[in-house]
Amino acid sequence: MTAPRTESPPLLSGLYTDRYELSMAWAFWREGRAEVPAVFDYFFRTLPFGGGYAVFAGAATLVEALAQFRFGEAELEFLRREGFEPAFLEALRGFEFRGSIWMPPEGEVVFPFEPVARVEGGLLETQLIETVLLNVLNFQTLIATKAARCVAAARGRLVSEFGLRRAQGLAGRWASRAACIGGCASTSNLDAARCYGLRSAGTMAHSFVQSYGDELAAFRAFAAVHGSNTVLLLDTYDTLRSGLPNALTVARELAARGQRLAGVRIDSGDLAYQARAVRQALDAAGFADVKIVASNQLDEFLIRSLLEQGAPIDVFGVGTALAAGLPDAALDGVYKLAACAGRPCLKRADGLAKQTLPGRKTVSRYRDAEGRFCADAIHLADEPPPERMIHPHDPSRRLALSAWRPEALLRPVIQNGRLVAELSDVAGAAAYARARLAALPPEHHRFENPHIYKVGISPSLAALREELMRPWLES
Amino acid sequence: MTAPRTESPPLLSGLYTDRYELSMAWAFWREGRAEVPAVFDYFFRTLPFGGGYAVFAGAATLVEALAQFRFGEAELEFLRREGFEPAFLEALRGFEFRGSIWMPPEGEVVFPFEPVARVEGGLLETQLIETVLLNVLNFQTLIATKAARCVAAARGRLVSEFGLRRAQGLAGRWASRAACIGGCASTSNLDAARCYGLRSAGTMAHSFVQSYGDELAAFRAFAAVHGSNTVLLLDTYDTLRSGLPNALTVARELAARGQRLAGVRIDSGDLAYQARAVRQALDAAGFADVKIVASNQLDEFLIRSLLEQGAPIDVFGVGTALAAGLPDAALDGVYKLAACAGRPCLKRADGLAKQTLPGRKTVSRYRDAEGRFCADAIHLADEPPPERMIHPHDPSRRLALSAWRPEALLRPVIQNGRLVAELSDVAGAAAYARARLAALPPEHHRFENPHIYKVGISPSLAALREELMRPWLES
Repeated sequence: MTAPRTESPPLLSGLYTDRYELSMAWAFWREGRAEVPAVFDYFFRTLPFGGGYAVFAGAATLVEALAQFRFGEAELEFLRREGFEPAFLEALRGFEFRGSIWMPPEGEVVFPFEPVARVEGGLLETQLIETVLLNVLNFQTLIATKAARCVAAARGRLVSEFGLRRAQGLAGRWASRAACIGGCASTSNLDAARCYGLRSAGTMAHSFVQSYGDELAAFRAFAAVHGSNTVLLLDTYDTLRSGLPNALTVARELAARGQRLAGVRIDSGDLAYQARAVRQALDAAGFADVKIVASNQLDEFLIRSLLEQGAPIDVFGVGTALAAGLPDAALDGVYKLAACAGRPCLKRADGLAKQTLPGRKTVSRYRDAEGRFCADAIHLADEPPPERMIHPHDPSRRLALSAWRPEALLRPVIQNGRLVAELSDVAGAAAYARARLAALPPEHHRFENPHIYKVGISPSLAALREELMRPWLES
Repeated sequence: MTAPRTESPPLLSGLYTDRYELSMAWAFWREGRAEVPAVFDYFFRTLPFGGGYAVFAGAATLVEALAQFRFGEAELEFLRREGFEPAFLEALRGFEFRGSIWMPPEGEVVFPFEPVARVEGGLLETQLIETVLLNVLNFQTLIATKAARCVAAARGRLVSEFGLRRAQGLAGRWASRAACIGGCASTSNLDAARCYGLRSAGTMAHSFVQSYGDELAAFRAFAAVHGSNTVLLLDTYDTLRSGLPNALTVARELAARGQRLAGVRIDSGDLAYQARAVRQALDAAGFADVKIVASNQLDEFLIRSLLEQGAPIDVFGVGTALAAGLPDAALDGVYKLAACAGRPCLKRADGLAKQTLPGRKTVSRYRDAEGRFCADAIHLADEPPPERMIHPHDPSRRLALSAWRPEALLRPVIQNGRLVAELSDVAGAAAYARARLAALPPEHHRFENPHIYKVGISPSLAALREELMRPWLES
């Protein structure tokens, strides 16, 4: 391509936001309210995929995005053309987020209605980062959760993320990152592999085989280059009548050279039936160590079904459903003002379920003697973990917590604009997710009607909410 | 944020691909097959959203991505660590796409099974760009199509794209671009607005109002800055009892200063009921020109329903459903080898519907005397537009084309690595989409059971496919 290399402006900047954030910032600035202390909560209302948990991801990406959330000359010039007041833009020139953020480590298991991030700082800066925070955390949490479900369904077999071609454009980079936090062993996406140190994997396309016309010649050419890393795609013409015998020939030729065929891939037809036939033939020929990779519109339900049928599949390649987080494709996370100028506040709504929770809050997770997760209590940040909690939307339902040991769900990650937590890499986050998911009782893991994990509010938080609602209830 | 500004590597590079593309490229290179002439088709099998058409988008982005699809020192160093052979990587160092691509202009109306892009060039380069081509065209076509549906439902009212917070992370930039090609009047996304010259729009959040405690004070502060561009959010406390009277007060205050309130937004509750009440009150107070913006989980079906109820809404803000292309969230486009070394080829499949179409092909669109689209015929590139066509999966169904005038659907965009077409900007592509959608008969536009647009293959293409399938059918 010798077309003009029109470099697009960098994606991450102070413009990575909705216009309304800047419209509000302008008004805050003009009114001298930029530094009024504010507290925002990030939380979601619905678990994705009808599941029993979500896996938190995106914290390190958010830190990176915030570090680049600045307004350079190019950004200011654009905003000037968009009609923003020059004096306000001068104030934005030095903007950087100097507030504080509390979040769990990536890989944490999280639930609806509890603050998954608490943001504190000046009103202008805390409002201004709303969009970028939602954009990063909603998407990566969605994908990490989907990956965890696929990995759970695979019961110890490997899951590899193959979705870049159907990913939502540039979404692919973060999709692969989050998929590996959720437990994927590898990704097809080389950009993400480089960016985050992920393990990359890949086999061959049907077009590779077609381009030779002769399948055996194609397999030999691939094996000549890839040696013991060779994975052959069997279904270009006929999996059992053509692909399999040709793969066995190449497996023998590799063995004769002191190498071994790594695997074969099946990408169409009845995967369970074919995998069994292929396994049998490989074993009979002395290639018990050759792995079987299966792909073709897989998701957690198809993986489960294949294993229930006893399909001897070693690696599941999951593409579209994982990279785009099907069928939900979005997590409904929101960012709500909880306190301003030291005063807790509420957005009024019809019914407690849509009411926000006021005040500066935190979350304690309660674990039993075996370390299992029993319940999460949302409470005011300046009160100790409560001994009992109240259902957030049904005050008649209460739960005693005193038998369990509380631990803090949120930790300080950014304090006054400084990174204060150690952010683990993807492998570390994946290990954390594995450990935390193991501590979540099995009834929350099932795909159909999972048991609802108990999230409640402390009595003092309930009282504060009631107090703030009273004027409306009485009006 | 004073955290280390770890700049991620640029997104668009030769690594914006699946590993298997490079695994195959390595084998092609080693075998001296890099320059073997190859032809690939990009097409999809299923129209998104159960609709009757798709709106093609992403061509200019693909040109940009291909111009950056190179391997610099950083990319090569990464691939070296990934185990690729140094001599092969040296060959990649000078890589640039020098092949040719035929595509429709952005905004074209396209249908399943017809090649929407034809790629020709050396085997290595045409294979290597598979992932990036699919990634760009699948996503942008999905979103442009969703936007066109929302715009159609809005019957002349404006649709604004508001989805960045629920977009799939970095997907937001291209989502907003494609949404505007599909007909959205504006986007909330400032980054995309800058990148593509889109109109940006935005109002205020509930948190803005909450942060003042006093809604009227908040409205006044906003209006003081935004003047005649002010749009006030009515539903923070109570749309009709609080937001509306306060907005009327501000409207009067603006009028007294020679300005006018631009609009009000409703974001919860019964949008139809509230919009009617708000409209009535605004009109009664002499503010007939104040626009009503509605948002809250809208999509084409809710927009249609609101207008069927007579809701006097002027602007629909559409977020998640548009930016993530719900409920499909992915277009199933594929990239299939059609010819290699001058020889047409097929991927064998069970049934004609999954069979690829062999050979170097193009598409002619047939229009009647009034210019309406009647049918598309896929035919060999070196034959004239056919006079009759055959259903691609049911050879018993035929259609005479001779009464209609054919036009070429695909045009040369890149030839031997050079950009040869003028690529329109987003506004141009949106105008083209509008014109093309207008030429598509109404029965293809309806949301429920749209009439299936006729796409067929020429008799010579059918004969070629049959000839290539014969060995299998006889085996």
